[in-house]
Amino acid sequence: MSFDNYRLRVNSCLDTHLSQSSALSENMRYSVLAGGKRFRPILTYTTASVFGVDLAHADSCACAVELIHIYSLIHDDLPAMDDDDMRHNQPANHTRFGVGQAILSGDALQALAFDVLTKNDSIDSGIRVTLVRQLAKAAFSMAEGQSIDLSIVSKKVGIDLLYSMHGKKTGALLQCAVMLGALLKPDLSPEDKAILTSFSEDIGLAYQVQDDVLDVSTSDAVLGKRQNSDADKDKPTFPSILGMEESIRVYKSLYQKASKRISQLSVDESPLRDLTEKLISRTF
Amino acid sequence: MSFDNYRLRVNSCLDTHLSQSSALSENMRYSVLAGGKRFRPILTYTTASVFGVDLAHADSCACAVELIHIYSLIHDDLPAMDDDDMRHNQPANHTRFGVGQAILSGDALQALAFDVLTKNDSIDSGIRVTLVRQLAKAAFSMAEGQSIDLSIVSKKVGIDLLYSMHGKKTGALLQCAVMLGALLKPDLSPEDKAILTSFSEDIGLAYQVQDDVLDVSTSDAVLGKRQNSDADKDKPTFPSILGMEESIRVYKSLYQKASKRISQLSVDESPLRDLTEKLISRTF
Repeated sequence: MSFDNYRLRVNSCLDTHLSQSSALSENMRYSVLAGGKRFRPILTYTTASVFGVDLAHADSCACAVELIHIYSLIHDDLPAMDDDDMRHNQPANHTRFGVGQAILSGDALQALAFDVLTKNDSIDSGIRVTLVRQLAKAAFSMAEGQSIDLSIVSKKVGIDLLYSMHGKKTGALLQCAVMLGALLKPDLSPEDKAILTSFSEDIGLAYQVQDDVLDVSTSDAVLGKRQNSDADKDKPTFPSILGMEESIRVYKSLYQKASKRISQLSVDESPLRDLTEKLISRTF
Repeated sequence: MSFDNYRLRVNSCLDTHLSQSSALSENMRYSVLAGGKRFRPILTYTTASVFGVDLAHADSCACAVELIHIYSLIHDDLPAMDDDDMRHNQPANHTRFGVGQAILSGDALQALAFDVLTKNDSIDSGIRVTLVRQLAKAAFSMAEGQSIDLSIVSKKVGIDLLYSMHGKKTGALLQCAVMLGALLKPDLSPEDKAILTSFSEDIGLAYQVQDDVLDVSTSDAVLGKRQNSDADKDKPTFPSILGMEESIRVYKSLYQKASKRISQLSVDESPLRDLTEKLISRTF
């Protein structure tokens, strides 16, 4: 199945999960169904497909990681955090609904992610418990990463702190998106698990370094948010520490390392390698 | 075991779960270990004990409901929500750490609750999945309830909306605290489950009506937060709609109904009845 089909698939599932009318449904639908690359769900579906997992089993994982991602964007955009007023080419959630309701939409989406993740009774309970633990740990790490990010605004920091901050803030959920897809396979070997762990770590970091580069080099309309938003906020970034050229070299080499690593999987890894190649050449 | 012992027990477990140093550990410990009545964990332990469940199995449930409760207090106190600057006789989390870090502490605590809830491998996986679903649904309802609460400030509303708003905002988690304790018993009968559902619904509502009454009649020092905070914010409350006398009659009668209902349980319900009696006479 193509990546575009995965995107359509997760959009349709998300729509269904948000179809019940509630006090927050308009707010949640506004942010969740606003578009977005759906990169995390695509990672989940692609990994699941590589291991021959029924995609119907992967739907709940794909939705759950995206719900956590969207909740984190709503909270990150708040005035007390990154203070961004645009997201996915529309006013940020708090700009549209007010700060209080935006905080609550994010809170509700985090809860919904865990509800959705455990909903599919045809997935073995033991596996579902493992999925919940993975997602909970990733969501916890993200909050920690954002906390560090907030605390280093206008500060001079070393490259190691930047790596570790982004490992939590962005890497943890990307890694989780891969691992959830793989853990749906009941007898995943420890070797394959280790390969995917290292693959997803590299992909997660590469993605963030690339994001920092694109933030400098891409226009508002293509990004769907303000260009140069990191520099404007005086946030330390990979280009500001390493320079643009070195940052581009770093993320390309991380993607290549990741691509090489998965060639050692016990299954045909080509869909994951195709995805990695698509990532290297992304422009937003 | 006495209610005080349950309080000590959950405090010690919470301390352990928050012992790992992280970017948010100081903030989280500040709010979680600040005291508080621990009414939800006490409900969980008491219900578990009534059904003969090993208390070591109830620890994760007791901690998880309290972590969700504390996260919701941190977010509810924010300037964009209820704008309360005192909680448990100390400055609110955002007053101490700033709004951004307070939002993130709450976010991390919600994630931690799901991590903790699934941690105990000696609890059957099928049961743990059920616990996660219950907690996720309760946490979702709480955010909805707070959203309604925010939207009705300074508005004239009917008593039915007030009941339904508090059913979500306060009732859902209190009900969950009872049900998690009971669901730990693998062969809980549908009859006992139905009795506990109705018991916990009544307790949840009674508790909130009583809170509204106590907010008017109790001093700051005893409440640990500002007296009359609801009226000062022009929030509709039970006393403001029903009057004080009728509100007191309503919550007493709900507690009595709850107490009567559990006498139909298949097990000795006296610890739950003792707890209900303690609640009727609480002063904060």
